[in-house]
Amino acid sequence: MRVVDLIHAKRRGEALSAPDIRSLVDGYVAGRVPDYQVSALLMAIFFQGMDREELTVLTEAMMRSGEVYDWSDIDGVKADKHSTGGVGDKVSLILAPLAAACGLVVPMVSGRGLGHTGGTLDKLETIPGFHVQLSRARMRRQLQKIGVAMAGQSEKFVPADKKLYALRDVTATVESIPLIATSIMSKKLAEGCGVLVLDIKVGNGAFMARAADARRLGKTMIEIGKSMGRRVSATLTDMNQPLGRAVGHANEVLEAIEALQGRCPPDLERVTYALTARMLTMAGLAASPRDAKRMIQRAIGSGAALEKFGQLIEAQGGDRRVLDEPWRLPTAPREAVIPAPRPGWLGGFDTRQIGLAAAVLGAGRATKEDSIDPGVGLAIEVKIGQRVDKGQPVITVRYRKESAWQSASKMLEQAFEVGQEPPRPPRLVLGTLPASH
Amino acid sequence: MRVVDLIHAKRRGEALSAPDIRSLVDGYVAGRVPDYQVSALLMAIFFQGMDREELTVLTEAMMRSGEVYDWSDIDGVKADKHSTGGVGDKVSLILAPLAAACGLVVPMVSGRGLGHTGGTLDKLETIPGFHVQLSRARMRRQLQKIGVAMAGQSEKFVPADKKLYALRDVTATVESIPLIATSIMSKKLAEGCGVLVLDIKVGNGAFMARAADARRLGKTMIEIGKSMGRRVSATLTDMNQPLGRAVGHANEVLEAIEALQGRCPPDLERVTYALTARMLTMAGLAASPRDAKRMIQRAIGSGAALEKFGQLIEAQGGDRRVLDEPWRLPTAPREAVIPAPRPGWLGGFDTRQIGLAAAVLGAGRATKEDSIDPGVGLAIEVKIGQRVDKGQPVITVRYRKESAWQSASKMLEQAFEVGQEPPRPPRLVLGTLPASH
Repeated sequence: MRVVDLIHAKRRGEALSAPDIRSLVDGYVAGRVPDYQVSALLMAIFFQGMDREELTVLTEAMMRSGEVYDWSDIDGVKADKHSTGGVGDKVSLILAPLAAACGLVVPMVSGRGLGHTGGTLDKLETIPGFHVQLSRARMRRQLQKIGVAMAGQSEKFVPADKKLYALRDVTATVESIPLIATSIMSKKLAEGCGVLVLDIKVGNGAFMARAADARRLGKTMIEIGKSMGRRVSATLTDMNQPLGRAVGHANEVLEAIEALQGRCPPDLERVTYALTARMLTMAGLAASPRDAKRMIQRAIGSGAALEKFGQLIEAQGGDRRVLDEPWRLPTAPREAVIPAPRPGWLGGFDTRQIGLAAAVLGAGRATKEDSIDPGVGLAIEVKIGQRVDKGQPVITVRYRKESAWQSASKMLEQAFEVGQEPPRPPRLVLGTLPASH
Repeated sequence: MRVVDLIHAKRRGEALSAPDIRSLVDGYVAGRVPDYQVSALLMAIFFQGMDREELTVLTEAMMRSGEVYDWSDIDGVKADKHSTGGVGDKVSLILAPLAAACGLVVPMVSGRGLGHTGGTLDKLETIPGFHVQLSRARMRRQLQKIGVAMAGQSEKFVPADKKLYALRDVTATVESIPLIATSIMSKKLAEGCGVLVLDIKVGNGAFMARAADARRLGKTMIEIGKSMGRRVSATLTDMNQPLGRAVGHANEVLEAIEALQGRCPPDLERVTYALTARMLTMAGLAASPRDAKRMIQRAIGSGAALEKFGQLIEAQGGDRRVLDEPWRLPTAPREAVIPAPRPGWLGGFDTRQIGLAAAVLGAGRATKEDSIDPGVGLAIEVKIGQRVDKGQPVITVRYRKESAWQSASKMLEQAFEVGQEPPRPPRLVLGTLPASH
């Protein structure tokens, strides 16, 4: 069938057949189908959607365009978590060693930051010596030995998604639930996990501002997972303020270390434990959420989770002394505060704006080629619903360049509001969509 | 503004600003804006449409991407007709010399056939020696001397449309009223006519099957014309059966010659005269449709229109003896008939199928590079509403290759129906939309 006929069919709202979807993906990766036809098709998909069968076939075809990991020879349940991205979201740094300390095998493949959100790989690389490019063989050995690895995508990993994502980025076809869902799931399923917990962020710092959209995305991904024989569930969590206290890179690693030491900000703890517990119950390692919580508290309280993070750092070439000597992490030389302009209650954040201000300080990338400054960042000193006095620091800023601080401070002054009434505190966990099976 | 932001805006249903549309068109023609962004934008336009201001700016930007003709130094009203395309549509061949014989100046720029419809240029080229590539200077001299020219687009003519059309063709974005309207109008307005009559074909042999769509297209083009200070009107005509008797190339030229000699099939005469009359009244040369009809009948009856066609042929290098010696036109060697399978009334045609069957015989192109066989073609012997006996020829076929005849005959046998009740005869002229001013 000619590609133009497939675009036409999708434009009319018809479903594409499995062989047609497969030959489109294969042809696109091989360079036989040109960008200009695929971008028109993507826009037609934006308007007309895809049904369950199409979503599954597209995800599988994308996944099979490159290397697919298979850890079935390693004992234990392979489980992972994926977040749709937020500001101050360092959950993976805590969850991966914590889940491994509880007995799961966690072959986590993460991405880098782009736009207003940070990336797990960039954060890990602030640990001196830590590297994230692991070969498949090395990742296998590490999983066998310590049960956890945190790696970047290899070049051979889901090339169809790399090519499609780059095209969507320049053709205004990013914000499409079928395209987001297939992009995420093709990558996560290629990691070879039997259990996958999705953390779908909702709010003004998330890609999905509305819970209804987040729910739709979650359901779509769960359906894809089910069709492909994986256990997938989705938890909707709040992103109307940064998660925890730190926004940046090295400062988020430090906050994760403190969390593993048992000193975690309550919102970060609530979200991290909920997601970890979900992984444990889905994997059958915990009989109930309550049972899972006990396992988690034991792993933190005993120091096992922190020790697992130390093993992870060591296995990936990093300096595990950062666990006890935080000054080994990079930090920017200057500090300043954004004070409350009046007394009252902290009523809300423009969370995306906070992420963008951190990027302006040097913690973000405008293009994939940019490098980040690992030592700059913010600390959120007051969270929604807390009282502030006039002049009390709301945000502490670590910066390097005066000019960056000037720009960022203007953005940050506009990024929160102090009201005269105490606001309703946000619900941290908005709900969990049932697992696929 | 970045192109991706413009695509995003259109995707959301917003209108693009005039400077943005101009820089998009200029950037695309210059190769700065890539195909893959334009195809995504075209698909977004397909779903979200364009408002009147956008349509006008886009048409003008496309028109100005190349050469724009200006015949203001030539005396007389410059007028043209454009058809959206049908099967057996040889109206231009009759109308151009006829309108010139009535005193209009007709600088007609036509296209070639593609798909199931024939092209005016291909038909003219069946006249020995006739050529259609006229320089601007030569076209001017010819218009000054005889008041009519029938030419192909020069390479420099509306390059934006050439590039956009080629892209639409492979990205399933052809059937969009804003895109069809701007494509047609950018070319017709670049011809430098003050008066333009649009013949919008409606029916199963037309690009618009439904009158409502045809009306929408007509209104859109009239609005564009109005915004650009031209007199434009649109007439909706029937395309539920081939127009006249001949479908092909040389045979259509012969039918046009016979029409100019006063021997015109009634449906072809009705449509051709209605369109020519519209040109004459809009130009102010006729006071009323009745007055226009008298002028037309005089031009035919006196032989002036036929003589004008002779002058046109001569001016463009052709052999005007074809007017009296039809054997000088090419004709395929073999003839066969498609008989009526039963007695009854001819109830309807699958007109598109008839056009495609003619293409299979050699009268059509699959790609722009294909050449056509000028001597093959069909004659429609029975029109909708006429009685037929069993075995009576419904279609006569002129062919060259036996294999082509085998394929075409199967298509043609399925391309009409003979019923037991006399059908309602089709209305030939469905309506005329008011002129722009």
